[in-house]
Amino acid sequence: MNQTISKKVVQLSHGGGGKEMNHLIKDLFFKAFDNPILRSEEDAAVLHFNGDVAFTTDSFTVAPLFFSGGDIGKLSIAGTVNDLAMMAAEPQYLSCSFIIEEGFEIAKLKTIVESMAKELKQSGARIVCGDTKVVPRGCADGLFINTTGVGRILQKGISVKSVTDDDVIIVSRDIGRHGAAILMAREGLTLDSELTSDCATLWPIVEQLIAANIEIHAMRDATRGGLSAVLNEWALASDVEINVHEEAIPVCDEVRGLCELYGFEPFDLANEGTFILAVPKKSADATLEIMKRFCHCEQAAIIGDVNQNRKGKVILNTPWGSTRYLDLPQGELLPRIC
Amino acid sequence: MNQTISKKVVQLSHGGGGKEMNHLIKDLFFKAFDNPILRSEEDAAVLHFNGDVAFTTDSFTVAPLFFSGGDIGKLSIAGTVNDLAMMAAEPQYLSCSFIIEEGFEIAKLKTIVESMAKELKQSGARIVCGDTKVVPRGCADGLFINTTGVGRILQKGISVKSVTDDDVIIVSRDIGRHGAAILMAREGLTLDSELTSDCATLWPIVEQLIAANIEIHAMRDATRGGLSAVLNEWALASDVEINVHEEAIPVCDEVRGLCELYGFEPFDLANEGTFILAVPKKSADATLEIMKRFCHCEQAAIIGDVNQNRKGKVILNTPWGSTRYLDLPQGELLPRIC
Repeated sequence: MNQTISKKVVQLSHGGGGKEMNHLIKDLFFKAFDNPILRSEEDAAVLHFNGDVAFTTDSFTVAPLFFSGGDIGKLSIAGTVNDLAMMAAEPQYLSCSFIIEEGFEIAKLKTIVESMAKELKQSGARIVCGDTKVVPRGCADGLFINTTGVGRILQKGISVKSVTDDDVIIVSRDIGRHGAAILMAREGLTLDSELTSDCATLWPIVEQLIAANIEIHAMRDATRGGLSAVLNEWALASDVEINVHEEAIPVCDEVRGLCELYGFEPFDLANEGTFILAVPKKSADATLEIMKRFCHCEQAAIIGDVNQNRKGKVILNTPWGSTRYLDLPQGELLPRIC
Repeated sequence: MNQTISKKVVQLSHGGGGKEMNHLIKDLFFKAFDNPILRSEEDAAVLHFNGDVAFTTDSFTVAPLFFSGGDIGKLSIAGTVNDLAMMAAEPQYLSCSFIIEEGFEIAKLKTIVESMAKELKQSGARIVCGDTKVVPRGCADGLFINTTGVGRILQKGISVKSVTDDDVIIVSRDIGRHGAAILMAREGLTLDSELTSDCATLWPIVEQLIAANIEIHAMRDATRGGLSAVLNEWALASDVEINVHEEAIPVCDEVRGLCELYGFEPFDLANEGTFILAVPKKSADATLEIMKRFCHCEQAAIIGDVNQNRKGKVILNTPWGSTRYLDLPQGELLPRIC
């Protein structure tokens, strides 16, 4: 192992643009993310495209860095890959930028980088350019990662504005796991049964939906703001009422329990591998059939439909027969969830 | 002015994915960066390309956020635009991701965002997607910005590997200004004459060089690691000796003075609007003629040439007739320079 790496913690000189930074980049990042474009070492990666391309960015500041079901590395890949996937774009190329606090353990950084490399394999995306900054102790909380992705769009027309009153709303799995897992990690809670984050790369599922020619109207992963944020955004942007049934929305017992304990709603909790679809009623069965082939989508379910009554609103039908508005979450639920 | 914005400091809820975040994004970021692609509000921006595209990322953690000649906003645009320009790529689209410390003044954020919007005009690049994270007090030092850029490549073949022994080495202006300006701001120094950072968008100059069909072999902005880092990278990657003359390298009196005071070398100091070119000898005059049309390149100069003697090495010829290796900077010069 290289001398610089074996010093065990990241030092300010690792971000200085000199010899130490070169060692860190070559011994750690290039080894984990190796590919011909990354190796070119120019100021920018050279890519080739013909046609429409999706472009998306995300900075990850999750605390703690390691949680049940993932870590910041897995999250930073799945998150950006999922943003591309939600546009029906093949996740092809990612940039990756680290902001590291002086004193951060190299061993931890290595674990995180390996976790990124592993998650990249789920979609076939490649990291083709990067940046490393080291800030003095106390100027950042351990590690922040930005990933920005580009990929060619395979199916056009998917949009927050395209939800119609002939659509059904489908959720890919039980909701609220990522928010609950972070809450649990932060509060040092242990539950009898294991609650893990849903953190996952969604591209393999989306790829199958596209291959089956499912006419997807809208598709979004329910990250910060949870299911509520996605549905409210769609209702407003598409100028429709979205009508969902609480009983149809899958929520696991652990998430339900934590929500009761802390006064949260599962609809507002963040997810990191759960997505919502609006597809025409006639495509609903085919969509569900494809989704359920994937183990984390076994609970995929139709949770509601769309009409023209109270445009811009999301209506939640409770198990007791009453209805209420499902609003956009307000205030601070859980900081640094992603 | 919107209620949320008038609260005057950024709160954790501004990063929560709910109403407050929507207000911050729409009232501040969308207003400053307005364009049709950004307004689409999908998970990713949709772009169109035919051909080769450059892709580059940079996270900016500069301290202090405001310095003589610029601020983190100007820097975050010029830096990424310049990385594209150095690949002869037209800076077209940028993503922009903010990590903001809770309690950061909205007024300061607004100044920085306006500075970004102003610098974008220098190249015509547009911010088409973004991300906002707010971390609790003490978890970041004010503000970090990541920008990632894509743009079509207008001239191929520019590479760290393409320097030949028929080339001359040109520097676009006096070196070391950005590093010196940051040092000055950090130490609270005031000099008799004003020293400003060289922070600037280089695309307009590069665009003219391309338009004039200058056969550029290598081109790099001398950021972290300064002139030394660029020349050493080229000497190694192109397997040549680069021979530079200290007297030919423009350095202003203020930078020279600060270097003497702090024991730095101007060659090692960071620049943020200064670039180095390797062009064939026969193109040198035409290159300089074009560069000198731009006010900040009036001092553009040939500083050296290339040979096959000590391959991989950079030789500095001092004014006293001696020679020495100009090495890659080692250790920590100035943390958080960009």
